[in-house]
Amino acid sequence: MEALDPRVVRTRADVLQAALDVLVDEGWDAVTHPHVARMAGYSKATLYAHWPDRLALVRDAFATFGQMPHAAPVGTLREDLVVELRSFRAAMIEHRLDRALAVLAERAPAVPELGPVRDAYVADGERPLRARLGPLLDPVGVDVAVHQLCGGVLHAALMHGAPPSDEFLDRSVEAVLRGFDLDPTA
Amino acid sequence: MEALDPRVVRTRADVLQAALDVLVDEGWDAVTHPHVARMAGYSKATLYAHWPDRLALVRDAFATFGQMPHAAPVGTLREDLVVELRSFRAAMIEHRLDRALAVLAERAPAVPELGPVRDAYVADGERPLRARLGPLLDPVGVDVAVHQLCGGVLHAALMHGAPPSDEFLDRSVEAVLRGFDLDPTA
Repeated sequence: MEALDPRVVRTRADVLQAALDVLVDEGWDAVTHPHVARMAGYSKATLYAHWPDRLALVRDAFATFGQMPHAAPVGTLREDLVVELRSFRAAMIEHRLDRALAVLAERAPAVPELGPVRDAYVADGERPLRARLGPLLDPVGVDVAVHQLCGGVLHAALMHGAPPSDEFLDRSVEAVLRGFDLDPTA
Repeated sequence: MEALDPRVVRTRADVLQAALDVLVDEGWDAVTHPHVARMAGYSKATLYAHWPDRLALVRDAFATFGQMPHAAPVGTLREDLVVELRSFRAAMIEHRLDRALAVLAERAPAVPELGPVRDAYVADGERPLRARLGPLLDPVGVDVAVHQLCGGVLHAALMHGAPPSDEFLDRSVEAVLRGFDLDPTA
């Protein structure tokens, strides 16, 4: 097994950050070994030594996105849902998660290897909402509520080109609480 | 102005259908004049004569998607919302609207000319819901309700890779009606 030479760790981190930047800035087809090497300031040969093909590079780049930031659920149900939607929005604004999700949505049907990457992103993204709502609703109810909460944010970012406002998020949570007859102070 | 020679009309329709097929099957970067010409059974020269560049071709291809199918709103509020969401889902399944939307979501930020195409799709898609809910809710309420209804379907199709079930759509409409305190029989 390769020793964790700090220079190797650093090189990998630099390249994967550059690959992720290219992906969210320019899209899937811009992620080529020559272009990413140029952006990261390394040789093409270095990139090929670490990642034999584009898919390996993209997959590792998505992985560096890492666990999405989630707020710890510590308040009432209303507060926790609002905080979680704000985290989702913050990840879009600060880490351009909306761009990463758009690439995964667009490419996963054509590139089967990306399906599991997309699924892992979605599962990680939805986990706190599902954990909070799971004990309170039947399974289809959880699905609908999670889809309405996440989907509302996604629809704003991907279809209207801008993440939603605070008021939108508050009202969205309010509507779901009411729509599923949930106690906001639970 | 060019006369509407039926052969020209036919050629354009054939090519644009092929371009749209390539777009939803293979994605944005596959839509090139040579590839679309091959798929449509016309010469590259014919394509270049009608569409000087790729963007012109893609733009016209998106336009052939035409008006999205909408059901006439003739029932109760609950029925009309359910029927509208089913139309949205049917367009995804029958015309692969989900793929077209994914391409627009992914490409519009990088290709400014696609912004208006995406916006027109979204406006056309949301129109019946907005027309039905507009008189019943304040403006932010309409936005949130439309985003939750459309976004729920979109999240299922783009992020989970499959359009939602009938039960999902019924429950989604139910939750929004309740969440916004709307009379289902209105």
